[in-house]
Amino acid sequence: MGIKITGTGSYIPSYIEKNENFYNHQFLNADGSTIKNSNEVIVEKFKAITGINERRYVTEDLNNSDIATFAAEKAIADAKIDRETIDYIIVAHNYGDILHDSEQSDTVPSIASRVKHLLKIRNPKCVGYDILFGCPGWIEGVIQAKAFIASGIAQRCLVIGSETLSRVIDPHDRDSMIYGDGAGAAIIDKSDLEGGILAHETATFAFDESHYIFFGKTNDKDSDAQRKYIKMYGRKIYEFALTNVPQALKSCLEKSGKSIKDVKKILIHQANEKMDEAIVKRFYKLHNMDMPEGVMPMTINKLGNSSVATVPTLYDVILKGDLENQNINEGDVIIFASVGAGMNINAIVYQY
Amino acid sequence: MGIKITGTGSYIPSYIEKNENFYNHQFLNADGSTIKNSNEVIVEKFKAITGINERRYVTEDLNNSDIATFAAEKAIADAKIDRETIDYIIVAHNYGDILHDSEQSDTVPSIASRVKHLLKIRNPKCVGYDILFGCPGWIEGVIQAKAFIASGIAQRCLVIGSETLSRVIDPHDRDSMIYGDGAGAAIIDKSDLEGGILAHETATFAFDESHYIFFGKTNDKDSDAQRKYIKMYGRKIYEFALTNVPQALKSCLEKSGKSIKDVKKILIHQANEKMDEAIVKRFYKLHNMDMPEGVMPMTINKLGNSSVATVPTLYDVILKGDLENQNINEGDVIIFASVGAGMNINAIVYQY
Repeated sequence: MGIKITGTGSYIPSYIEKNENFYNHQFLNADGSTIKNSNEVIVEKFKAITGINERRYVTEDLNNSDIATFAAEKAIADAKIDRETIDYIIVAHNYGDILHDSEQSDTVPSIASRVKHLLKIRNPKCVGYDILFGCPGWIEGVIQAKAFIASGIAQRCLVIGSETLSRVIDPHDRDSMIYGDGAGAAIIDKSDLEGGILAHETATFAFDESHYIFFGKTNDKDSDAQRKYIKMYGRKIYEFALTNVPQALKSCLEKSGKSIKDVKKILIHQANEKMDEAIVKRFYKLHNMDMPEGVMPMTINKLGNSSVATVPTLYDVILKGDLENQNINEGDVIIFASVGAGMNINAIVYQY
Repeated sequence: MGIKITGTGSYIPSYIEKNENFYNHQFLNADGSTIKNSNEVIVEKFKAITGINERRYVTEDLNNSDIATFAAEKAIADAKIDRETIDYIIVAHNYGDILHDSEQSDTVPSIASRVKHLLKIRNPKCVGYDILFGCPGWIEGVIQAKAFIASGIAQRCLVIGSETLSRVIDPHDRDSMIYGDGAGAAIIDKSDLEGGILAHETATFAFDESHYIFFGKTNDKDSDAQRKYIKMYGRKIYEFALTNVPQALKSCLEKSGKSIKDVKKILIHQANEKMDEAIVKRFYKLHNMDMPEGVMPMTINKLGNSSVATVPTLYDVILKGDLENQNINEGDVIIFASVGAGMNINAIVYQY
């Protein structure tokens, strides 16, 4: 028995927030102190490290569950299935629905219930739930779909990663430039065909690392606002990821029975281009190889870090032929990989 | 292969909020209009329908992840296991951590990561994630543990249901008297012994029902506060539950291969005593039987509705001999069942 992705879809918000749009921000250090550089220099340095030129934000009228539904509609159409045959709707996110003028996360009902409602699916045996697993949530949802299918509990799952980080960013924090909004979705099916999910790896590092990404107050210490925003210790995350992600990829590849030379693409979560390059280079170094050109397709320059949406969106845009010089062909072995809040790391070796 | 619960634990907050504590509330209808009855009459009617005399709230110093950890510690001790052997920590909740003086849900890192951190578990292969599935979240977590174990992905899971509803209740809403706080946990193990999880049933009704429980503003229409609270359409939920839960229990029992006469206890989610009685009576009526005395152990009079915590807490207090005239003995067939936001319904037939 195989477990395959039989349809994909994504939603890329229409509004583009360019790096220049941050020139008038008052950026502050985490301790509230001023940053000596001009905003132009701050943004230039940011661009050099992360590779991010622009990112997408949802418009005021849209919520996380709306864009999750848009991506799901496309995945259902792509898979050419009857939506009433879906056994599970698994939505990975981290902040639920946050209205544009609110600071509260709305998670009741679950985003999956909202998506199911908006998709107009009637079958009560189509079970919808949300998972919270940091940025690696969509890959984790696919692993859960694998568990349901492998155990005979389900045959077909819709796994969505959707997030509107634009609604939890501190305008006084440089790191806020990293984040964007988006949604990606995939239909996961039991299959008699070869390939599909060959192996997975998943891990939670919480002893020292649990709060490397957290919810904290604005960097503007003059403000008495109690509102919290997404915050991170970037340097710690960089070191953590570089230490642990290459090994996780190696372990997953070994489980799959495939060789490093079989790997055609690594679709890795994108929060920082330099970090991703360092991770993938180190992964190849563990196999005494140089990183092959074009093995790591990137969308970060235009989309930023859209959390759980990054990996499924990247996969979708490649399959649809929308990423220049990138393609995935029948039989290709690819690796999905992610690292994020928790701190969680996961990977899937997948044969297309 | 069997899948068994090998340890349980719960945390019942120390602070007791008695019905009399609501006498000085200004209760209003959902449309903001005043309620003609005195608060004493309102509370008396409330008590007659729901069976609730008092409920527990966490003290100001505690968060959802703290009480989840307390329950988990007890379950680990009860199962007499090495915590480093746990493969998954699955935490069901709906609102994350909400500080006593905040209105924001804090869900990054996930509550599971926080619990893992507080439990001081080092093993990175112990994976922690949260599920959002309304009040039926803990039972759904057990079903997910079943999927992981049955598919060979895991051997041992810690499933926690933990919620602090006291932090999302509108003081002007009579329904707020229903809710309490609490946490329950169980260790789910692969087992060579007979019994354990015999069957499960799970469903999401979202076409018409998705927003029967929702997040809404205060009933005090004079307030311009934007803060939202847990809200529900009680009458619709009552009818929905009475229509769909008995059938789900029947279907689950049929899958298990057990007879209605084998059923010793039904541990059902408790939001309303009269509703639960009506559900279980109807379940027996579907089998042309009267509801046996003592088949439905209740904690609602003292604990209220503690959401995802209700069922695991109920199971734990019975096993520990803390619920008068109630016990579960080796070989007993019991049914866990829940209904709640989503709207979700689930059940497990379990042999102790």
